[in-house]
Amino acid sequence: MFKAKVKSEVLKGIIDVTSPLVNEVKLNINSKGISLRAVDPAHVAMIDLNINNKAFEEYKADDIELGIDMDKLSGIMRLSTAGDVISLDYDETANRLIVTIGNLVRKMSLIDTAGMPDPKMPNLNLPAKAIIKASEINRGVKASEAVSDHLAIKVNKDNFELFAEGDTDTVNLKLPKDLLVELKSDNNYKSLFSIDYFSNMIKPVKGEDNVTIHLGNDNPIKLEFDIADKKGHVKYLLAPRIESE
Amino acid sequence: MFKAKVKSEVLKGIIDVTSPLVNEVKLNINSKGISLRAVDPAHVAMIDLNINNKAFEEYKADDIELGIDMDKLSGIMRLSTAGDVISLDYDETANRLIVTIGNLVRKMSLIDTAGMPDPKMPNLNLPAKAIIKASEINRGVKASEAVSDHLAIKVNKDNFELFAEGDTDTVNLKLPKDLLVELKSDNNYKSLFSIDYFSNMIKPVKGEDNVTIHLGNDNPIKLEFDIADKKGHVKYLLAPRIESE
Amino acid sequence: MFKAKVKSEVLKGIIDVTSPLVNEVKLNINSKGISLRAVDPAHVAMIDLNINNKAFEEYKADDIELGIDMDKLSGIMRLSTAGDVISLDYDETANRLIVTIGNLVRKMSLIDTAGMPDPKMPNLNLPAKAIIKASEINRGVKASEAVSDHLAIKVNKDNFELFAEGDTDTVNLKLPKDLLVELKSDNNYKSLFSIDYFSNMIKPVKGEDNVTIHLGNDNPIKLEFDIADKKGHVKYLLAPRIESE
Repeated sequence: MFKAKVKSEVLKGIIDVTSPLVNEVKLNINSKGISLRAVDPAHVAMIDLNINNKAFEEYKADDIELGIDMDKLSGIMRLSTAGDVISLDYDETANRLIVTIGNLVRKMSLIDTAGMPDPKMPNLNLPAKAIIKASEINRGVKASEAVSDHLAIKVNKDNFELFAEGDTDTVNLKLPKDLLVELKSDNNYKSLFSIDYFSNMIKPVKGEDNVTIHLGNDNPIKLEFDIADKKGHVKYLLAPRIESE
Repeated sequence: MFKAKVKSEVLKGIIDVTSPLVNEVKLNINSKGISLRAVDPAHVAMIDLNINNKAFEEYKADDIELGIDMDKLSGIMRLSTAGDVISLDYDETANRLIVTIGNLVRKMSLIDTAGMPDPKMPNLNLPAKAIIKASEINRGVKASEAVSDHLAIKVNKDNFELFAEGDTDTVNLKLPKDLLVELKSDNNYKSLFSIDYFSNMIKPVKGEDNVTIHLGNDNPIKLEFDIADKKGHVKYLLAPRIESE
Repeated sequence: MFKAKVKSEVLKGIIDVTSPLVNEVKLNINSKGISLRAVDPAHVAMIDLNINNKAFEEYKADDIELGIDMDKLSGIMRLSTAGDVISLDYDETANRLIVTIGNLVRKMSLIDTAGMPDPKMPNLNLPAKAIIKASEINRGVKASEAVSDHLAIKVNKDNFELFAEGDTDTVNLKLPKDLLVELKSDNNYKSLFSIDYFSNMIKPVKGEDNVTIHLGNDNPIKLEFDIADKKGHVKYLLAPRIESE
């Protein structure tokens, strides 16, 4: 059983952080809330998302798994406007999710979750940590797209830095400690990442919201931020690119 | 002779309801106003439009027919802004319509009306009638486009209903009597229509305006609504699709 | 040496008037300001632009030439928002321009100016002059694009006029003297121009700003207007098209 009511913007927020990485996801639903963990088709990035049942207006659920086509759900949500309360109701017999927006009833078929994996979150030792307003990073990521397809993230005791280098042009964004919400780094750390992926992970974070970054040396990066009015939490993992020099 | 002045938004309104169905139309002009009746190229839909001369700021006309290319007129109207008063003047010698917007004079060639038909409005017996705010239907039509290419309209004593069914997904919009402006139906009626056409007919109606729907069983649907501040009236007819089961 | 700080909107203004005509330009920089003169690849139009050093927040320069890729600079400026102050710093060793926006440092390679010409401004005798608000002309140019690829500009003692003629349709915009800021013409003058080029030259002028037009008979047209809060000035020259009749 799964029966819930949720504000349009909360459901849209879940779609916004998930759909840049994966289209078909398995929602793990239980009485406490909803979680999903998925790896992108190229196995470069992972999303781990948890939403507390307090993010919902009404919530009632047993332990079930729902296979969702994010594109389809996103199309349905475009029919709603901010402030709408959406009803979600799992129809077990037909394996469909019944989405109700006002007087509109949309029955959406679900994907078979039988073949869908349960990826494990790898155990990583990422010694550096920085908490940054998303808006501070956005400009650097956008600028980097013009000169290269990968960027370096560096953290040391005093700065967070983003660096991209093309054949002739470079981009450098240096954020000193006083522009960061928090910086904890006992040494110099640096890893290289795909700009496409990094950009997809930063875009869903609203400009004024904080994003927590965990970094090591030639190691994956972990990004964390809250959604759904702090009643939900997202973790992204992105594998490093190895410098070819 | 045809010489008139009209507010930009009135002329744009005429284009908005006509151009989704037909591009080349014959305007029948006389001293009382302008009418047009046309069938779309696929012979699935008909538009019947009447504008009273009171919809114009100035109006002077003998009995004439003007062949208009709606795309071209629409392009000209994009040069105007809300509040502009447009002058229309028929130049009989050159068979052109002289459109004046402020200091700009645009002479537009007309289409030969010789070969253009005068379709007759068929005599239909459509027993059910519902008057609905356009905004109430719009969401249902948009949702239907995602699951099928046709939708069913149903009316009974208590509800107006719109239903679309794809291979796996469905859309249902049920509007009970108290959400309708008027409902008159002694029985259950249902007909099936192309979503593309139905969407084109509903889109030009502004959200808060009423649209009157006449329905029968496996019969055409008739939509009626006012334009030009109630000084103009539009009737659409749409042929049914026959259920193949 | 070249080291300057400039408001984002001033730099964007320079790009807006230049990039519709030429992509690669040579900036001639000296202690008084920056100038550029360039001919479009088809040799139909010329731009002559001068910016006083007073248009900058800070300005320090020796005599140098910088070869700029306008597309690239435009891409960089999209990272800035109105009110940003941009730092420009010429790195002579690497032949790069260092563009700093907030904490972002973008090093942009420059183009070799060795092969770039120094076009001379032709000496023209254009007897008619009209000063017009850009917004008055814009509608006429847009309307002309629908009927032809060239338009005529006419000036006489009483009017400024724009005229375009297609196979069946025409556009005419007549601005009497009292709608103009200034009109000085002792006779009738008329020249024909490419609409594409003329449109590219009028578009960068903001609607409420004045543009000064100098016209002769079958002669180039000269357009002049201020930018950068009157601390910069632009001259466009456009060669006439010869009427083929």
